[in-house]
Amino acid sequence: MTELSVGQYQVVLNFFSFTIAAMGAATIFLWLNRSLVAAPYRMAVTVSGLVTFIALYHYVRIYGSWQDAYMVVDGTLQATDKAFNDAYRYVDWVLTVPLLLIELILVMRLTSSETVSKSIRLSILAVVMILLGYPGEVSDVAGTRWLWWSLSMIPFLWIVYELFIGLKKAVDAQPLAARGLVSGARYLVIGSWLFYPIVFIFPMLGFDGPTAETFVQVGYTIADVVAKAVFGILIFAIALKKSQVEEPTVA
Amino acid sequence: MTELSVGQYQVVLNFFSFTIAAMGAATIFLWLNRSLVAAPYRMAVTVSGLVTFIALYHYVRIYGSWQDAYMVVDGTLQATDKAFNDAYRYVDWVLTVPLLLIELILVMRLTSSETVSKSIRLSILAVVMILLGYPGEVSDVAGTRWLWWSLSMIPFLWIVYELFIGLKKAVDAQPLAARGLVSGARYLVIGSWLFYPIVFIFPMLGFDGPTAETFVQVGYTIADVVAKAVFGILIFAIALKKSQVEEPTVA
Repeated sequence: MTELSVGQYQVVLNFFSFTIAAMGAATIFLWLNRSLVAAPYRMAVTVSGLVTFIALYHYVRIYGSWQDAYMVVDGTLQATDKAFNDAYRYVDWVLTVPLLLIELILVMRLTSSETVSKSIRLSILAVVMILLGYPGEVSDVAGTRWLWWSLSMIPFLWIVYELFIGLKKAVDAQPLAARGLVSGARYLVIGSWLFYPIVFIFPMLGFDGPTAETFVQVGYTIADVVAKAVFGILIFAIALKKSQVEEPTVA
Repeated sequence: MTELSVGQYQVVLNFFSFTIAAMGAATIFLWLNRSLVAAPYRMAVTVSGLVTFIALYHYVRIYGSWQDAYMVVDGTLQATDKAFNDAYRYVDWVLTVPLLLIELILVMRLTSSETVSKSIRLSILAVVMILLGYPGEVSDVAGTRWLWWSLSMIPFLWIVYELFIGLKKAVDAQPLAARGLVSGARYLVIGSWLFYPIVFIFPMLGFDGPTAETFVQVGYTIADVVAKAVFGILIFAIALKKSQVEEPTVA
């Protein structure tokens, strides 16, 4: 049984609400400004908006589930019969994480065959990574959590390898004006993704109870905002910069 | 425990509803008319619409939270277990206030590097200003409120300085036809923003209880409408005027 304080409950709810606003704003920003980039980059911007849109939907569900899971009685928080549904996060990630990687590949403008092969490989790795994490997430047993965490880290590290070694030549072939941004986008992916396995192991490190629960929820939420909304804006910035370099008539 | 009258409760609710309508209308006005301004000004108009869109979302939440926080029993108002969530305002401001300043910078059409550097500096100042205000807002102790109010006023005054001294040269370089509007936009920012620190100190001046609560809610709401919807329309007017001067073929 959880013993969250009213304040902790409210902090988490406010972070969820913040994320709804941020994902909604990012989605509209990306879709409205899609026409500002050159045609070859519009798909990357469209997909970036899809990612934040899917996240928007899931945060509306997450917000509602969190609200339904608790009620305030005489100034203290009590859990209701409806448990908070953590699975919304995993469903979201199964959809958005492959798309995030595809955004990055699309904005690089590789050859068609490279785009397809790299998109498929990274998408499969991402889905496997997320599915392997889930059995651990829903377990309270530290040993079980470590097992699935370790298995999930294999595709995670493989993706890191693909982004840094597999894409190195493609990054070096980017126009000079955009190379720093493209390279930075890879670091943003890895930096924001590192949150997830770290947040995941909080309970296994003895960091447990309501404060840990608050940190887990806020941690995943911040990671999602950075990995999806901030990353999407960065993809747009890259697309705009490359459009200006390659087709100087574009605004 | 609050002792708002039913009438005061209703006045506040009506102001929230008015704001939902105003923000929604401003959002659609700005996005629909975005194509009427020349390409270099479209981003300013898009961002103006994002600000009112984010505020629209938060006023829907604020309205719902206000409704849930009270109920009428035998003709008198009683607080429920669900406290009104004031944090929605601060979450809104963290997102919208940096964007408001970016609107103003974008419509000035400075060089790329100036646009980026001024946007970053003003955004950081705005976020710091808002975060410093929050611990005071949630305190009932006058001394604590004064402390955080004073700290928050440092970035506030810094922003005023940036707008009036830092941007003076840029304002003087605006086309003559738009110079008055651009300069006026700065005064509208400062004028509407002055509401917030003044509303904040109501409870510290012994102006307390249900009438003060009503004034605080209505005061913040009017300030938000002016600072976001009215300001956004003004940014659009500037963008249109500058488009006509610089590209006379634009409508």
